[in-house]
Amino acid sequence: MNKVITISRQFGSGGRTIGKEVAKELGIPCYDNEIIEQIARESGLAEEFIKEKGEYTTYGGWFANALADRSIDGLSMQDRVWTYQRDIILKLAKKGPCVIVGRCADSILEGEADLLKVFIHADMDTRADRIVRVYGETDDAPKKRLRDKDKRRAAYYRFYTDTEWGIAKNYHLCLDSSKFGLDVCEDIIVQSFVKM
Amino acid sequence: MNKVITISRQFGSGGRTIGKEVAKELGIPCYDNEIIEQIARESGLAEEFIKEKGEYTTYGGWFANALADRSIDGLSMQDRVWTYQRDIILKLAKKGPCVIVGRCADSILEGEADLLKVFIHADMDTRADRIVRVYGETDDAPKKRLRDKDKRRAAYYRFYTDTEWGIAKNYHLCLDSSKFGLDVCEDIIVQSFVKM
Repeated sequence: MNKVITISRQFGSGGRTIGKEVAKELGIPCYDNEIIEQIARESGLAEEFIKEKGEYTTYGGWFANALADRSIDGLSMQDRVWTYQRDIILKLAKKGPCVIVGRCADSILEGEADLLKVFIHADMDTRADRIVRVYGETDDAPKKRLRDKDKRRAAYYRFYTDTEWGIAKNYHLCLDSSKFGLDVCEDIIVQSFVKM
Repeated sequence: MNKVITISRQFGSGGRTIGKEVAKELGIPCYDNEIIEQIARESGLAEEFIKEKGEYTTYGGWFANALADRSIDGLSMQDRVWTYQRDIILKLAKKGPCVIVGRCADSILEGEADLLKVFIHADMDTRADRIVRVYGETDDAPKKRLRDKDKRRAAYYRFYTDTEWGIAKNYHLCLDSSKFGLDVCEDIIVQSFVKM
């Protein structure tokens, strides 16, 4: 089994940047947008649609979501994205050691790779500042938007993996990037990976 | 404000041992049994009683607990232990940099010290093995006992701090000691402390 680092993260915590830097340091690939692009190629769906449907429940919570837009075989569009996503992640992990950001990879790869499961979070102020500064978000209520994203990401995770997102015992290593800064987080992950 | 490491931990995860070794490495005191002994001296209560009442709810959950053994001023014995415990932890953190194991110190010291809040957990098999091997527990159902301890510790924490125990975002650093081993956990905590 290949050694794979999965990075789950709160939106705006810098987890994606940390993942990319860790991969660069270790000389292994980091899969993030590549997964979305591959689903787009295989499914014919638009990348923006996949980005949204592959990590977030739709508004209305899991119940509305469970009933939404199902076709005759009982699968919703979200279920289809999930199936593509799962198959692609399983294939990528078989190719060699890598870093995979988000998309429930920690749960999908359980028993399929030698995992280092990481969770990155940060305080609200730092995250709000980051989404405005780095992503150029112009929303005038960034904290409200972050809380909404957290809720929908947790609901998506629970719906498809039947485990809880953000609970310490479900990860090997959880880091507050607003406490340490991204560089120190990267160092700690690289060292943990080398020593595991 | 002094730099203080608080170590919250699942029972049997080796968190206490990690705390002691980190303190030794950094040349600062580690408070654990000292807190219990001091409460015993000041309150006249037995150490075993304090050990239990300072981290675990009684059987029956928080509701039974909230109503239990209250005296005329409305305080239960558990509330009294909590008050002693809080005052002693606040005093210890004022004396100088230190490590404090358990006893809700992370919540008690919020805003009162420059905190590194750590949570240590481990998988069930490792913990069950550890409590039999290290603590000489003879219970023939160690996993059931661990699950019960987790529940009562989480309930105690929720009752007195109004926050959730074991949720990643409530700590700066969470580590799975069964993944890395105690030595690597100690290294990571020492380095994080030095760099923060």
